[in-house]
Amino acid sequence: MGTSERTIRVTVWNENVHETTEEAVRQRYPEGIHGAIAAGIRDQLGAGAAVRTATLADPEHGLTEEVLADTDVLTWWGHAAHGEVSDEVVSRVQRHVLGGMGLVVLHSGHLSKIFRQLMGTTCTLRWRAGDDRELVWTLKPHHPVARGVPSPIVIPAQEMYGEVFDIPDPDELVFVSSFTGGEVFRSGCVFYRGNGRIFYFSPGDQAYPVYHQLEVRRVISNAVAWAAPTGDGRDAPKLRNSPLGWYDEEAEGQS
Amino acid sequence: MGTSERTIRVTVWNENVHETTEEAVRQRYPEGIHGAIAAGIRDQLGAGAAVRTATLADPEHGLTEEVLADTDVLTWWGHAAHGEVSDEVVSRVQRHVLGGMGLVVLHSGHLSKIFRQLMGTTCTLRWRAGDDRELVWTLKPHHPVARGVPSPIVIPAQEMYGEVFDIPDPDELVFVSSFTGGEVFRSGCVFYRGNGRIFYFSPGDQAYPVYHQLEVRRVISNAVAWAAPTGDGRDAPKLRNSPLGWYDEEAEGQS
Amino acid sequence: MGTSERTIRVTVWNENVHETTEEAVRQRYPEGIHGAIAAGIRDQLGAGAAVRTATLADPEHGLTEEVLADTDVLTWWGHAAHGEVSDEVVSRVQRHVLGGMGLVVLHSGHLSKIFRQLMGTTCTLRWRAGDDRELVWTLKPHHPVARGVPSPIVIPAQEMYGEVFDIPDPDELVFVSSFTGGEVFRSGCVFYRGNGRIFYFSPGDQAYPVYHQLEVRRVISNAVAWAAPTGDGRDAPKLRNSPLGWYDEEAEGQS
Amino acid sequence: MGTSERTIRVTVWNENVHETTEEAVRQRYPEGIHGAIAAGIRDQLGAGAAVRTATLADPEHGLTEEVLADTDVLTWWGHAAHGEVSDEVVSRVQRHVLGGMGLVVLHSGHLSKIFRQLMGTTCTLRWRAGDDRELVWTLKPHHPVARGVPSPIVIPAQEMYGEVFDIPDPDELVFVSSFTGGEVFRSGCVFYRGNGRIFYFSPGDQAYPVYHQLEVRRVISNAVAWAAPTGDGRDAPKLRNSPLGWYDEEAEGQS
Repeated sequence: MGTSERTIRVTVWNENVHETTEEAVRQRYPEGIHGAIAAGIRDQLGAGAAVRTATLADPEHGLTEEVLADTDVLTWWGHAAHGEVSDEVVSRVQRHVLGGMGLVVLHSGHLSKIFRQLMGTTCTLRWRAGDDRELVWTLKPHHPVARGVPSPIVIPAQEMYGEVFDIPDPDELVFVSSFTGGEVFRSGCVFYRGNGRIFYFSPGDQAYPVYHQLEVRRVISNAVAWAAPTGDGRDAPKLRNSPLGWYDEEAEGQS
Repeated sequence: MGTSERTIRVTVWNENVHETTEEAVRQRYPEGIHGAIAAGIRDQLGAGAAVRTATLADPEHGLTEEVLADTDVLTWWGHAAHGEVSDEVVSRVQRHVLGGMGLVVLHSGHLSKIFRQLMGTTCTLRWRAGDDRELVWTLKPHHPVARGVPSPIVIPAQEMYGEVFDIPDPDELVFVSSFTGGEVFRSGCVFYRGNGRIFYFSPGDQAYPVYHQLEVRRVISNAVAWAAPTGDGRDAPKLRNSPLGWYDEEAEGQS
Repeated sequence: MGTSERTIRVTVWNENVHETTEEAVRQRYPEGIHGAIAAGIRDQLGAGAAVRTATLADPEHGLTEEVLADTDVLTWWGHAAHGEVSDEVVSRVQRHVLGGMGLVVLHSGHLSKIFRQLMGTTCTLRWRAGDDRELVWTLKPHHPVARGVPSPIVIPAQEMYGEVFDIPDPDELVFVSSFTGGEVFRSGCVFYRGNGRIFYFSPGDQAYPVYHQLEVRRVISNAVAWAAPTGDGRDAPKLRNSPLGWYDEEAEGQS
Repeated sequence: MGTSERTIRVTVWNENVHETTEEAVRQRYPEGIHGAIAAGIRDQLGAGAAVRTATLADPEHGLTEEVLADTDVLTWWGHAAHGEVSDEVVSRVQRHVLGGMGLVVLHSGHLSKIFRQLMGTTCTLRWRAGDDRELVWTLKPHHPVARGVPSPIVIPAQEMYGEVFDIPDPDELVFVSSFTGGEVFRSGCVFYRGNGRIFYFSPGDQAYPVYHQLEVRRVISNAVAWAAPTGDGRDAPKLRNSPLGWYDEEAEGQS
């Protein structure tokens, strides 16, 4: 069935604040975090993906109705400026996700408006900026998102994210991480919402070169390929009246 | 039934619009839908529950910080006036649910702000006002919410609610209903969010005397008993910094 | 990413007892139930699938180590002779499923040794042979298994299967059916076990021509495509000693 | 804690092989591992539990039909002699679990016949005998099984159990552990099967005094209280014919 012949249209979103205000981050990510993520996806998926980027400073944050309608999978990175993202854009993104657009939420994006709005919980966690080594363990070796990565992925230095991570139980739990300090974290989580597929992946921080690491790029690219819609059309669930019953309606096909 | 020595503090919330504007509904529910639901809970749980009611027209809809702090389980009925519920009150209720307060959402409450905000999806469905007979089948006979009710519960006349019901996969699916028209619906759904327990139960409508039916009252009462917090305190998840690691923190107990 | 370039190797298994002992069934399924199922898959998947059949009467029921190693997805139909299936063959099939082989269990296969052994429960249900009309409703319109079928699928005459269906909670619930008698049934259930994907689909009976119906053939074919392994190799989970720790092991890749 | 007026009838089962063949284990657990577990439950639940023990060497391993019918919750410890447990007894225990008896499986019991038979998977994992420090983190602070224990529980020296743990996705994931070596493990898992509740808890080994540790005893006791049946009667799911339909059957109540 595979979506393999199709080119997946990817929009990589980044608030792009740390890179424009902190010299160390600019040096670490000279093309921005979005640039590094986009490069990783292009590198991994090649002709299988058409990747563009968008940032907070763009008009409508670069996420107009037209852009979203032309996007199969959106990736999201934010941290310092969650509050500056327009509620209208967030609701628009939510509508597209429920209609079938894939969403890959990265690292500090756990506190983004769009993730919290889709989860319904606080999405809070425990954290420490302490150069912990992170080990990312695979729980589901045959899951498409885990394809081709070692278990564990070793990230030499990272921010610690630990439990309790206040999310609904993931529909599939693909990765769990441990840190030097002994903490654990559900670092790779699948959620199905409406007709859309959501993957949360925690590795990655403005203070560490995580998005240059091959295995991390592979997971993100796997997630993009996995989250691409399998149905045709952007088809958000809606209230439907059946006054006469199903037998009087026209057949409704799914595709 | 579990927390049997404790008296469960229940707040029954109702928008109370149909009853005050439509004579037929007033006659069907002379004490309001909230009155019928409260009577059912009092009848079933007896001294095990202390039940009060609150409605849309009350100041702050009757859901002040003080009332919620004094509530173990909140039940929610709304239909015609979802949009009139204050966003501030909705966020307050959400915070209490994530902190451990139980929530029982009834029937057309599926489109309430509070339910949609906790689910993150559209919560839309298929419906018909056509006097269908509803059969409520138990999938989990030993679930506390199904205690003491026949399978199926036969509701002689009801609004039809059918799939697709756009919700996250329930953490537990207790009841599924069928209707005269042949439609099916996940009519009894458990969700765990934050530290709170949520039960959605679909039978019940302003146009039918469903909340006077014994089996329906029993399910709602079971749900109230089940949703009551097992932990002590209203303890919403929060962001927590662990700069020195778990070993330097004071022990954190749960209760 | 898509299995679309690969040809899926399918083995359609059938006990083939009713067809060889009852004239009415022979006339309904002149090529056997396995013949009808195989024809449906060939028709739907075309060059995407290489389909063979195997039956109870074959040596080792046609399910030798060699055949299973050469099978991506196995479909299972049985009813009258569950007890005659060799325990050794059942354990062999289970090992292949846990290693990544897809399994599609059909109708009365719910009581087969292999399904009960993989589920761990009784897999019992409620039933009636009464020419009920079955309506198969889609709960997840964008699930690959639901692709291209109407909701509901109308099956004019069928055996009734009703709840309680004693299975573990499905990892994904794709279809729920209703019957003329008002019963409901989880008719399309996804289970992930080990590295394998399992789909249970209830429509289908020796007494009705269900496997000649287009929509049913489409669901079975969708399920076959979906259940095909995404990893490389038949890789059953095993006990693994890590005496020196992960850092001393050779990297373990998944593919 | 819930079923507080009732006395929970607990049977603590242990193969009792290491204690009778290895002097070091005998000294660590002079009353046997079962003795230590039983003492912990008695200490924590007091008059709320009536605890007896049974071992492999007893006739029918001490698990006759009469004993099981008189047991609300069974705890299981085994390691060296899984293969010596009679298949007939295992099937009997499985039948009681599906009928509503609670089951708490401990540590190396993950490879017991009863656990593998109920799970349907290999239940294999990664392990190391290397005196790792285990940290047991709570993911669900308000879950009854986590009541009153710190997060993390610190176990000074333990056998390492790591992922991949080949189990079906737990219905609820309460604890995740990390180890000195950096491995992670789903150490507290809830499974609902039939009418029964199952909890798997990994801390504990014949080579370490884990079952003397207060927090571990509290978790096991919490699990016992939580797993006690909420329904009345030992009611295994069964095949049920409804020739005339639900409307002609006697009402079936649950209790």
